[in-house]
Amino acid sequence: MSRSSVLEHVKPAVRAISAYTLKEYEYEVKINQNENPNDVPAGLKREILDFALERSWSRYPPFEPDGLKKQLADYTGWRPDGVLVGNGSNEIIQALAAVFLAPGGRLILPAPTFTVYRLVGTVQGADVVQVPLKSDYTFDCDALEREFLDNGDMIILCSPNNPTGVLYPRDGLVSILDKTNRPVVVDEAYYEFSRETAVDLLESYDNLIVLRTFSKAFSLAGLRVGYGLMAPELAREVSKAKLPYNIDFFSMAAAEKLLDNRSELADTVDEIIRERNAMIPEMNGIEGVTAYPSRANFILFETPFDPKAVFTTFLGDGLLVRDVSSYPMLGKALRVSVSTPDDNRRFLSSLARVMETLARN
Amino acid sequence: MSRSSVLEHVKPAVRAISAYTLKEYEYEVKINQNENPNDVPAGLKREILDFALERSWSRYPPFEPDGLKKQLADYTGWRPDGVLVGNGSNEIIQALAAVFLAPGGRLILPAPTFTVYRLVGTVQGADVVQVPLKSDYTFDCDALEREFLDNGDMIILCSPNNPTGVLYPRDGLVSILDKTNRPVVVDEAYYEFSRETAVDLLESYDNLIVLRTFSKAFSLAGLRVGYGLMAPELAREVSKAKLPYNIDFFSMAAAEKLLDNRSELADTVDEIIRERNAMIPEMNGIEGVTAYPSRANFILFETPFDPKAVFTTFLGDGLLVRDVSSYPMLGKALRVSVSTPDDNRRFLSSLARVMETLARN
Repeated sequence: MSRSSVLEHVKPAVRAISAYTLKEYEYEVKINQNENPNDVPAGLKREILDFALERSWSRYPPFEPDGLKKQLADYTGWRPDGVLVGNGSNEIIQALAAVFLAPGGRLILPAPTFTVYRLVGTVQGADVVQVPLKSDYTFDCDALEREFLDNGDMIILCSPNNPTGVLYPRDGLVSILDKTNRPVVVDEAYYEFSRETAVDLLESYDNLIVLRTFSKAFSLAGLRVGYGLMAPELAREVSKAKLPYNIDFFSMAAAEKLLDNRSELADTVDEIIRERNAMIPEMNGIEGVTAYPSRANFILFETPFDPKAVFTTFLGDGLLVRDVSSYPMLGKALRVSVSTPDDNRRFLSSLARVMETLARN
Repeated sequence: MSRSSVLEHVKPAVRAISAYTLKEYEYEVKINQNENPNDVPAGLKREILDFALERSWSRYPPFEPDGLKKQLADYTGWRPDGVLVGNGSNEIIQALAAVFLAPGGRLILPAPTFTVYRLVGTVQGADVVQVPLKSDYTFDCDALEREFLDNGDMIILCSPNNPTGVLYPRDGLVSILDKTNRPVVVDEAYYEFSRETAVDLLESYDNLIVLRTFSKAFSLAGLRVGYGLMAPELAREVSKAKLPYNIDFFSMAAAEKLLDNRSELADTVDEIIRERNAMIPEMNGIEGVTAYPSRANFILFETPFDPKAVFTTFLGDGLLVRDVSSYPMLGKALRVSVSTPDDNRRFLSSLARVMETLARN
């Protein structure tokens, strides 16, 4: 029997997305995903594992992670009933898109920025409007504000921005918030490395949503926990688009334990900030390298050479960096995560070698 | 300054959903969520925890759970490139809704059935069309087929159905599949207790999607792992609506370990099936109780009394059952999960007491 395919019923917007794939590489030093190089301290891991040995795995997690929400309220200074916890902050982004973006709606983004925003908006059938950064990779606040006020149904501002490391200026954010009640999402995934936040504006603006994650400073990328902070009445709406029991008991226990013991992590976060600040001038001291200012745990840099060649030469040296040259505007750029002091020294000497090698060819 | 609220920009379909809440109760025996009463065997837990102690938590999970997909292919007899793993099968349902349901589209469901389907369809802006079960709570296959062929964009058939325990007849399923290439989702969350599957039909029908979960027979409700089986070209499309890194490394490791050692779980699944089959006639032997046939790990039953009073009287006896009387058609019904032999004996004697107590009032 000849049948036509089920694929003809897949929404055209979904068909048009090119499936995301990630190639796997052999490496010694992994500095491509902005992960924290420091594992959760072994003592804390053992306490969480002891709890998991006792707790029955066959029982659902609590319906609401009330304990974790209270701790997050304490950590952020916001209200527990205005906290949503997600399977990574990605899940909160997805829920926000489902709640605010209808087909034909407009999601406003700077470009380049974190790729998941675009993907999630497109799946909802929204048109994604991308406003280029300025030539120095700072945000074009005026253009973003104009585009959002004229046409936008939601705007997402990653601050510091991935992959550029630049903060969204506070006066630019307030200027938008003062002019509209449409949803303004500020993704502060790298907040602990920038120490600049919009959380204090939540009290005044019920259309502000602040996203955070445990994947970076809290060393939990492997366990997928993120959260959103917003007005309680908005949290109630957004939670309808979140799956019940979205956070498993183990990830929840790990996040709780880390928040309780966050002072143990402070030194490693301080170290990453110090290392970042030291690395940027060192990178700029290498002939041909332009490293950009960063408030996150990664550094964007450009060279005169083909980024694919730069990437491959690093890989030959055992270092896995990120080639970001397929992002808008970034045709010459790569991104490196700030790692341990040893890894960072190794990266710097490798960078000098890579530049010499490619200059010779 | 007086501002209008951000809530006016939330999609009307989302606003109209009443937020799902779950009241918490004190209990001794929890038989309300169709959980497996048996925890993962301690030896296997220790092996998974040993792995977690070694593995860095700060590193992302693998981009694709290739090992788990291969094991699932081996377990189910389907192809690894046709497997999608989700944060619970709920996430696959959500992705299917995002891919197939546009606003104004029609999701066809039997009623009553698992409530998440309706929620997920509504968030996508679809109209949810509910086709009542027959009066004996079997599926009305003809009416479902007619409604789907006439008006439907997607149909979800929970088999065995939650909360009724009834299988969707195979000839009814084949009849639908033969007549349309629109997506037909069969949720086999309770497959291991029914041992009836539609997986062998996947080869012939590229519009069939079979869902399964680790939350029931595999004792992993606490860790949230589900999966979908479908044509590889459809899996590629649906995966675009799934978040990257949706499965954390710990849940992935647990699912892999349990699949490798599934023979260790076989006895407890057999026991639940035996207990279920013994309980139903015993329940029907109690004056006033009607217990329905079930192929799952739970039993639907009715009494002449107010289900809220039945629920409360059980709770006074230390047993937390599920009052399902708010579901369509089920105004007199409750649901009990099949638990350990000891729990089940306790439930049966409590049921007799509850019935006597309420008959006296």
